[in-house]
Amino acid sequence: MTAGQAPDPTFDVLAFGNAIVDVLAQADQAILDRHGLEKGSMRLCDDTEASALYEDMGPAQEISGGSAANTVVGIASFGGRSAFVGKVRDDQLGEVFAHDIRAAGVAFEAPPAADGPSTGRCLVLITDDAQRTMSTYLGIANQLGPGDVPDDLVSSAAVTYLEGYLWEQPEAKEAITRAAAVAHEAGRKVAFTLSDSFCVDRNRAEFVSLIESSVDIVFANEAEITSLFETADFDTALATLRPMVEMAAVTRGAAGSVLVRGDRIEVVSAEPVDEVVDTTGAGDLYAAGVLYGLAVGYDLALAGRLGSLAAAEIISHVGARPEVSLADLAAAVIG
Amino acid sequence: MTAGQAPDPTFDVLAFGNAIVDVLAQADQAILDRHGLEKGSMRLCDDTEASALYEDMGPAQEISGGSAANTVVGIASFGGRSAFVGKVRDDQLGEVFAHDIRAAGVAFEAPPAADGPSTGRCLVLITDDAQRTMSTYLGIANQLGPGDVPDDLVSSAAVTYLEGYLWEQPEAKEAITRAAAVAHEAGRKVAFTLSDSFCVDRNRAEFVSLIESSVDIVFANEAEITSLFETADFDTALATLRPMVEMAAVTRGAAGSVLVRGDRIEVVSAEPVDEVVDTTGAGDLYAAGVLYGLAVGYDLALAGRLGSLAAAEIISHVGARPEVSLADLAAAVIG
Repeated sequence: MTAGQAPDPTFDVLAFGNAIVDVLAQADQAILDRHGLEKGSMRLCDDTEASALYEDMGPAQEISGGSAANTVVGIASFGGRSAFVGKVRDDQLGEVFAHDIRAAGVAFEAPPAADGPSTGRCLVLITDDAQRTMSTYLGIANQLGPGDVPDDLVSSAAVTYLEGYLWEQPEAKEAITRAAAVAHEAGRKVAFTLSDSFCVDRNRAEFVSLIESSVDIVFANEAEITSLFETADFDTALATLRPMVEMAAVTRGAAGSVLVRGDRIEVVSAEPVDEVVDTTGAGDLYAAGVLYGLAVGYDLALAGRLGSLAAAEIISHVGARPEVSLADLAAAVIG
Repeated sequence: MTAGQAPDPTFDVLAFGNAIVDVLAQADQAILDRHGLEKGSMRLCDDTEASALYEDMGPAQEISGGSAANTVVGIASFGGRSAFVGKVRDDQLGEVFAHDIRAAGVAFEAPPAADGPSTGRCLVLITDDAQRTMSTYLGIANQLGPGDVPDDLVSSAAVTYLEGYLWEQPEAKEAITRAAAVAHEAGRKVAFTLSDSFCVDRNRAEFVSLIESSVDIVFANEAEITSLFETADFDTALATLRPMVEMAAVTRGAAGSVLVRGDRIEVVSAEPVDEVVDTTGAGDLYAAGVLYGLAVGYDLALAGRLGSLAAAEIISHVGARPEVSLADLAAAVIG
């Protein structure tokens, strides 16, 4: 790495992720049971399964989503400079995704594909306990390949943020490793989110190998990190991860989060919330706060605090995109 | 009319209206000024204008809408039996509209069109004062014609509810008059909503003629009814309307509503709301409460109270479809 010699970045964070529109509906346990869904999980499904579930779902609302996309929208809301790479079709949901991410202030340049599967969607069932159970039809999002990595954009971003959810197709794996290589070549950092404990289950060895070889900053929650190292003990998992990376930020739900860098460890409280309405996007927005905090030079504790703030905003309403300016929120709370 | 001889209805209310998906975003006065929009109004626009406004709008959420469609969804939420006729394309927004209205318990049978303009959408700009300013691209909704009137369905509904917004194309006017004729032939009632004061402005003489010849129950707000009779005085307007119809229900915003039938007049208060978030759909849901109340045999005052209740629920959140069961709400408040 040649971090010291890189020119000033144009973007604080460039994210690669699945471009997804969320379809959110209130739900009860019965519909989870009918479709064999485990509460709180994310599963991938094909078009047929998605259609069957959609037909059985209640009235819904559509809000742009996608894990890494939510994160860069959060960074833009804090006032950071962010960009996104992900694939949409030239259909109505693709138009919705592109409009919303650009309107949020995120650079999103690639034109929509003229053929292939439709734009991806995530059917989100929100139960009364505010948990979300997600069934994702990836559609064309799944077809991200190494040819979609814009070298100049990667080189111009201080951090390239990669989503574990992408790690499904050989082509997407090539895209991820290529983006990481280009970023490091340009003297930039690579961040990676484990995304989901089931995603970790499917890709454990490859994730460990990717982290050891190509990742500087890891984002995870407790279930993901303990799954990654196949231990029930959080401290054991964190101790195993620490020597592999420059930094890690691990969320523990209502118990807050833990951030580590070198010898430093910071335990950060969760921000109190009047009512938890929908936990969709909590981890995505936590990452946004931390990455924005790092971009403006905050220490670990304050970066973690911004993460908690953004997560609290997102779980207090339906949908995984902020409804208020996170910059205003941060100014009001932190000053 | 042969009301006494009609068989028991299968549906309480069948509505004809524009099938529309709402695209809702927070907005400031500046964007209204840039696009020459008058706050609180509804204007029709073409695809080009809609695209230009959409590009300038902030991140949005998509929630099924359409004025009369919102009304029949509200009736279903109260526990009433309702159906809808309106046109969608076989595109993603058409799928969203059809899914949401069916999932809400409304019968919606007509298959989507395989060609023609795309499914209609309404760009809703919500300002900080909770007002909504609407720009509607009707798309294929605009192509409703007399051939789309399902005679059997109309004959089987106690009330056929017609939306003034439909009164734009000669074909749609034919559809409305045909539906009214079929309903009366079957001994059923015809209800009509004036929809919007600009809509009344464009069609004043035809609306008066339609009401006199074919309408039993009129829904309106204060601006619409005073526009209809070109008077500044509410009481004058109401007195002019009364002899033309069997019944009328007229809303006055925070001042509540007035319902008249024959010699009876009932003044109903608005239901208090903690915070008015978005007034989209207030009139639509008021009509739902009144029509449901009439269907179950409530008197004017109690029917109006249900209208106030439903309107209060809808203005306390974003979107014009109820987020809770109106039947539960009615049971809790009225018993």
